[in-house]
Amino acid sequence: MKSRIHFIDTTMRDGSHAMSHSFTKEQVSLIAQGLDDAGADIIEVSHGDGIAGSSINYGFSKTRDIELIEAASKVVKRAKLGALLIPGIGTISDLQEAYDHGVRAVRIATHVTESDVSLQHIKAAKDRGMFTAGFLMMVHMAEPEKILEQARIFEDAGVDYVNLADSAGHLLPDDVRRRVSLLSEKLSIPVGFHAHNNLGLAVANSLAAAEEGASYIDGTLRGLGAGAGNCQIEVLSAVLERMECATGIDLDKILKVAEEAVEPIMPRAQVIDTASLMLGYAGVYSSFLLHARRAAEKFDLNIKDILVELGRRGMVGGQEDMIVDVAYQLSRSQHKAD
Amino acid sequence: MKSRIHFIDTTMRDGSHAMSHSFTKEQVSLIAQGLDDAGADIIEVSHGDGIAGSSINYGFSKTRDIELIEAASKVVKRAKLGALLIPGIGTISDLQEAYDHGVRAVRIATHVTESDVSLQHIKAAKDRGMFTAGFLMMVHMAEPEKILEQARIFEDAGVDYVNLADSAGHLLPDDVRRRVSLLSEKLSIPVGFHAHNNLGLAVANSLAAAEEGASYIDGTLRGLGAGAGNCQIEVLSAVLERMECATGIDLDKILKVAEEAVEPIMPRAQVIDTASLMLGYAGVYSSFLLHARRAAEKFDLNIKDILVELGRRGMVGGQEDMIVDVAYQLSRSQHKAD
Repeated sequence: MKSRIHFIDTTMRDGSHAMSHSFTKEQVSLIAQGLDDAGADIIEVSHGDGIAGSSINYGFSKTRDIELIEAASKVVKRAKLGALLIPGIGTISDLQEAYDHGVRAVRIATHVTESDVSLQHIKAAKDRGMFTAGFLMMVHMAEPEKILEQARIFEDAGVDYVNLADSAGHLLPDDVRRRVSLLSEKLSIPVGFHAHNNLGLAVANSLAAAEEGASYIDGTLRGLGAGAGNCQIEVLSAVLERMECATGIDLDKILKVAEEAVEPIMPRAQVIDTASLMLGYAGVYSSFLLHARRAAEKFDLNIKDILVELGRRGMVGGQEDMIVDVAYQLSRSQHKAD
Repeated sequence: MKSRIHFIDTTMRDGSHAMSHSFTKEQVSLIAQGLDDAGADIIEVSHGDGIAGSSINYGFSKTRDIELIEAASKVVKRAKLGALLIPGIGTISDLQEAYDHGVRAVRIATHVTESDVSLQHIKAAKDRGMFTAGFLMMVHMAEPEKILEQARIFEDAGVDYVNLADSAGHLLPDDVRRRVSLLSEKLSIPVGFHAHNNLGLAVANSLAAAEEGASYIDGTLRGLGAGAGNCQIEVLSAVLERMECATGIDLDKILKVAEEAVEPIMPRAQVIDTASLMLGYAGVYSSFLLHARRAAEKFDLNIKDILVELGRRGMVGGQEDMIVDVAYQLSRSQHKAD
C-alpha cells in the first residue's frame, strides 16, 4: 500500500437502500458512535440516493434525513460527518442545510461520464470549507483514459480526492487495478474506491484498489447495501490488519458495532442471490430488474439475456422505458433464429 | 487461464456441515440432478468430514451417507459422483462400500504436512480405476516449497491431480498465487483449489488460482459450508463466463439449482459473522471456537487474542486441550504488562 487507508463508512447512506430508508435516530446514534470510536475517518449519513433523495422516485425516508444527520452529529467526535449529493437530486440549499446540521465532508456524485455537472456543487462545498470529493458512479462503463479525463475535471475544480464507484458490482480485480493505477499515477490528489459485492469480489476489489494506490476505501458494516451489498468494512479491516496496513481502525471495536448495532436491525442477511448476481454480471442498475422481469414474461425471454443486452447497450438509470423495446427486438431476433 | 476449468461441487459434502449433516435423499436427488444437468464435473456427496465421518466426534448424519450416495448415483448421468476420504476417519472398506454404490472419484485428504498417510488409500482407489485426487488441508500453514514436497508424494503415488484447500479461509489472493503457481509449474499433474470465505475472498482466491493454472476448482451452491462457507459456485461460474473462460457450466441452470434446490433448505444465510471472520483472521479450525470462547471468559481475555495465538503456534485439530494452557499463559503475560 502507498499510504494509510482512510475508511469511509457508508452503512447509513448506501446501506440505507437495504433498510428501505427506515433508519431511526436511535439506530443512527448507536452506529455513528460505534464507528467514531472504532476509528472510521468519515461517517456518511443520508438517503441512499444522497441529500434530498427522499422522494416518490427514490423512496421516502421514514425519518427526515436532516434529523438523522443531527443525531449522528451529536455523537461523532473524531470522524468527519459526511453526506453524498447527486446534482439534480440535491441542491446547494440542501447542502447548506446539511452543513448547518454538522456535515463537514461531502461527495458530489455523477455518472462516470458527467462530472462537469458537479462544478457549482463542488464550489459551494469548498466555499464552506468542507472536505469535498468527486464521486464517479458506474465506472465499469468507461475505460481508464475516459475516467482520468473526468477525474481531471474534479481535480481542476479543487476536490480533495476522486472516488471511483463500481455501482453495479461488475468489475473484476484487474479492471479495478487498471482504473485505479492510472488515476493514482496521473492525479495530484488521492483516489478512492467504492465496491459492490454482486460478483463476490467487493473485498478483493477494495484490496486491489488499495494495492494500486487508492487511499480512501468505502465500506459498510455487515456489507449492508442494495442487492448484494457493499464491501463489508469489518472484513476488509481484518484483511488489512493481517497485511499490517495502517487504517486507523480498531478491529475489536468495529466487530462490536457490526455485531451489536447493525446485525440485529438488518431486515435480511446480505447475500448474493440470483437477481443481484445477474445485475452484477450484466453491469446494470438495480432499478432495471423489475422492468426486465416483466418484459421477460411478456416476450417469453430469459431475464438474464435482457439484462446483458441492456448492459451491452450502456443503458443508464432513467432509461427504464427502453427495456420493453430491447426485449421486443431480442424476441424478434431469437424468433428468427429458431 | 491455462485450460478449461473443471468444477467440483461440494455442496453435499462440505456444505453438509452447514446443514448439521441433515441432508435427505430427496434433497440430494434434486441437487445432484440439477448439478449434473448444469454441467458440474464432479459432484461430491458424503459427510462433511468425508466417508464414515458420521460419528459422535464429527456429528451424526441424519441419513446414512451411503444412502445419500445411492440417491445421487441414481440421477447423475454426465458428472462423476465423488466423495472425500480422510485417512483415520474413513477406511479402505468404507471406500469399497462407496465404490459399490456408485462413487467414481475420490479425494484423499490429509493435513498439509502429512500426505504420506494417504498412500494405501490412493492405491486402493487407483486399483478400482477411480479418479483420485490428493487433497491437502490447511495450506496456509505451509510455505509453497513445503506444499510442493507434499504434493510430490501424491504425484508419485499416482493421483490424477493435487488439490490445495484453504480450510480456514485465511489466504489472501497473493498467498494463493504463490502456492498454485509453484505447483502448476513443477508438477506434471493438474492442480486444484478449494476456498473458504472467512475473509470475503473465496471467489477472488478461486479466480487467482485459476489464473495461476489451477484447472479444478471447488465450490458450493449459495456458498453453503461451515462458518463463512465456501466459494459460491454460481457466482464463480458467472465471473468465469464473463471472462470467456470455458467451464462446462450452463449459467442459467446452475442459477436455477442454487435458487430452487438449495436456498429454500438452508438453515441460515451464509454470511461472514464475527466468529467466522475471527477464525479466518487467525487461521485456525472452527472446532477451536467454542473452547476459545470458554477460555476467554475464564481468563477475562479477548477471544481474538486467543485464536491468533493458537494460529501463531500452528495448532491443528485434535489439540483443543491446549487452548486452556495458551489462555493461561496469555493471561499471565497480559497481567504482567498491566
